[in-house]
Amino acid sequence: MSTEERVRASFAKQTMMQSLGAELESVAEGWVVITSPILPTVLQQQGAGHAGLAFSIGDSAAGYSALTMMEEGKEVMTVEMKINLMAPAIGDRLVAEGRVIRAGRRIVVVAADVFAEKDGTRKHVAMLQGTMIPV
Amino acid sequence: MSTEERVRASFAKQTMMQSLGAELESVAEGWVVITSPILPTVLQQQGAGHAGLAFSIGDSAAGYSALTMMEEGKEVMTVEMKINLMAPAIGDRLVAEGRVIRAGRRIVVVAADVFAEKDGTRKHVAMLQGTMIPV
Amino acid sequence: MSTEERVRASFAKQTMMQSLGAELESVAEGWVVITSPILPTVLQQQGAGHAGLAFSIGDSAAGYSALTMMEEGKEVMTVEMKINLMAPAIGDRLVAEGRVIRAGRRIVVVAADVFAEKDGTRKHVAMLQGTMIPV
Amino acid sequence: MSTEERVRASFAKQTMMQSLGAELESVAEGWVVITSPILPTVLQQQGAGHAGLAFSIGDSAAGYSALTMMEEGKEVMTVEMKINLMAPAIGDRLVAEGRVIRAGRRIVVVAADVFAEKDGTRKHVAMLQGTMIPV
Repeated sequence: MSTEERVRASFAKQTMMQSLGAELESVAEGWVVITSPILPTVLQQQGAGHAGLAFSIGDSAAGYSALTMMEEGKEVMTVEMKINLMAPAIGDRLVAEGRVIRAGRRIVVVAADVFAEKDGTRKHVAMLQGTMIPV
Repeated sequence: MSTEERVRASFAKQTMMQSLGAELESVAEGWVVITSPILPTVLQQQGAGHAGLAFSIGDSAAGYSALTMMEEGKEVMTVEMKINLMAPAIGDRLVAEGRVIRAGRRIVVVAADVFAEKDGTRKHVAMLQGTMIPV
Repeated sequence: MSTEERVRASFAKQTMMQSLGAELESVAEGWVVITSPILPTVLQQQGAGHAGLAFSIGDSAAGYSALTMMEEGKEVMTVEMKINLMAPAIGDRLVAEGRVIRAGRRIVVVAADVFAEKDGTRKHVAMLQGTMIPV
Repeated sequence: MSTEERVRASFAKQTMMQSLGAELESVAEGWVVITSPILPTVLQQQGAGHAGLAFSIGDSAAGYSALTMMEEGKEVMTVEMKINLMAPAIGDRLVAEGRVIRAGRRIVVVAADVFAEKDGTRKHVAMLQGTMIPV
């Protein structure tokens, strides 16, 4: 299996991604992009996307960027993740860009940025930094 | 409105909570408990609850614990949140206990613990620490 | 060597702790307390202890609490650490209490609270949550 | 006072920076670089720079990048900061580059990267992401 096939096969098993309507937009070495609509079913109390939405796709994008740099046969698990939320998740959809900062044998340090797109313009709404391990 | 009514009214508007099947179990000053089933729709690739599930209910529990200590008329927003995942979210349901560590006028420091319950026993699966602001 | 001897031997090699005037106050399984004066040499621009002071002793207390639960012959290294600062570090001294949240074989999740003591009263000034690995 | 003068005046009051031998290398809008030698007085138990060293200069670099975007007369305080440590801090000196991710009126989201320099080559040893407030 190619790296992209491995990531796509794993992503397809994440029912959370399907429930959020998320899609795996692109996969490269150490770089994965996931998008999701801001569905009426994932909002917080003021009508913006819930912090858990930005977290979920940001975490998955970061995790899969790590998976691209792990040996075949491995899966990836989040050890910890921190998110800063800079602006409400309002717009047509969210785009999460995950990347590897440093791939060690035992742990992989990752980051992700989440953008809200509206009418073709992008706003940086969240930023994640975390640690993944192969399992 | 009582504090509990304010929290319940806000929680009812979080469609994300409804989509996750989450319920507001208890509300006290600086202390909120939210539970959720581990539905087939919220899993990661290995069949455990997605990190985004533990994050979402942990973040909401922590946020609402902060709301209990804010003035009436305010809503709460997550500035940042960090989660450490200690064990896979496997079992009958998750229980997130959110609490206020320090309530300042401008920011409120919060924490939450998330437990997976299975056949009446609890396992500590995640731990969150973050910052909320009144909006 | 007893666990306490191992921790004390490692602590004695941390020249940073000596430069801060820090002392290892107590060591138990999964629990370590480090204290430090708020010396004129460790301040921030407004005269309180620098965030780096609370971080340094909190990180070391948390790390050594992890070391108490690792095999003999191992040392501990910080993978990541997050600190929330709740109040200025003002007073006679800081006390950092580190503890293990979950000790796994590959990673240990830890936490620490830092208090400022003044005239015998304590104020909770910082809270840390992080990940350690044996090396 | 120019922005750079404001930052330099504040930095000069941080006795912690002087104790670490840190220097303010450059100041631009939303961008501050601080360097420090890896003195024999700031080590951890294995002879590398202590996590508290990378944290201290990373936190100050990030904080001062925020200060460049705050109104005159304000000082900056760290609300929270998270650090991932990617490699031991070994070499001739550390370089911390702090930058503003988003400057809001109430809070400023910042990040910093810390590099260890040895014989003119750089290694990325730590990465910080946090929140500052004007005080």
